[in-house]
Amino acid sequence: MNTMNTTLQGKVSTNWLDAVKWNSQGLVPAIAQEVGTNKILMMAWMNLASLQETVELGQAVYWSRSRGKRWHKGEESGHFQKVKEILLDCDGDTIVLMVEQTGVACHTGAHSCFFNLLDQSQTPYVWQSETQKNDH
Amino acid sequence: MNTMNTTLQGKVSTNWLDAVKWNSQGLVPAIAQEVGTNKILMMAWMNLASLQETVELGQAVYWSRSRGKRWHKGEESGHFQKVKEILLDCDGDTIVLMVEQTGVACHTGAHSCFFNLLDQSQTPYVWQSETQKNDH
Repeated sequence: MNTMNTTLQGKVSTNWLDAVKWNSQGLVPAIAQEVGTNKILMMAWMNLASLQETVELGQAVYWSRSRGKRWHKGEESGHFQKVKEILLDCDGDTIVLMVEQTGVACHTGAHSCFFNLLDQSQTPYVWQSETQKNDH
Repeated sequence: MNTMNTTLQGKVSTNWLDAVKWNSQGLVPAIAQEVGTNKILMMAWMNLASLQETVELGQAVYWSRSRGKRWHKGEESGHFQKVKEILLDCDGDTIVLMVEQTGVACHTGAHSCFFNLLDQSQTPYVWQSETQKNDH
């Protein structure tokens, strides 16, 4: 904890991975945001190895919690994410990847995974699919 | 699980809260994104009660994991988040709040919590504080 605070407050880390605060499963949430549009495409999880590989490869590599293994985004679909910037938040427990998305981010075929908009004009409230808006 | 899939694929839920897939602690990550700029301001966690209250109040209410209690963002700082839209992702386990931020989102005084940019031009890599850029 002291190491993390020191590195973040000092703005320079001798080991950049020390600044990341992994959860009890050794994971950190990573939000993929699209360069240019700033759209949020998806959120997934990374462990230390996947973050290292993301940096080395220049493409997003996550840890799939459902499959319990490394997940190189696009390895099956071809929908790779070229990583242009990596940002870490104030307390080191969440990452933002600024990416150029090949194809679409979502396995449903939508450009972004966040296509369900809460419609509060109806009673009861409903989630309306906004894929048309997102898939411009 | 069937309920969630049915509600999302059918685009209409009889109970919009059923579509949210809470984790084992009863929480879901919520990303606050700024209306207009599309900047990602912060990520925090919500439980069912805080999501309900967010909708009723029209302001972001989170669950503070560190303090183990309800966290009405801005209750101490005055930096409230007016919630304009709520989005849920394809598998129902992550929320995006489109917000108008009063003041700044980060407790450090930065506009966004994501101000540490990985600088790969240096060896070893370093996290550079980008608060000047974010605090326009």
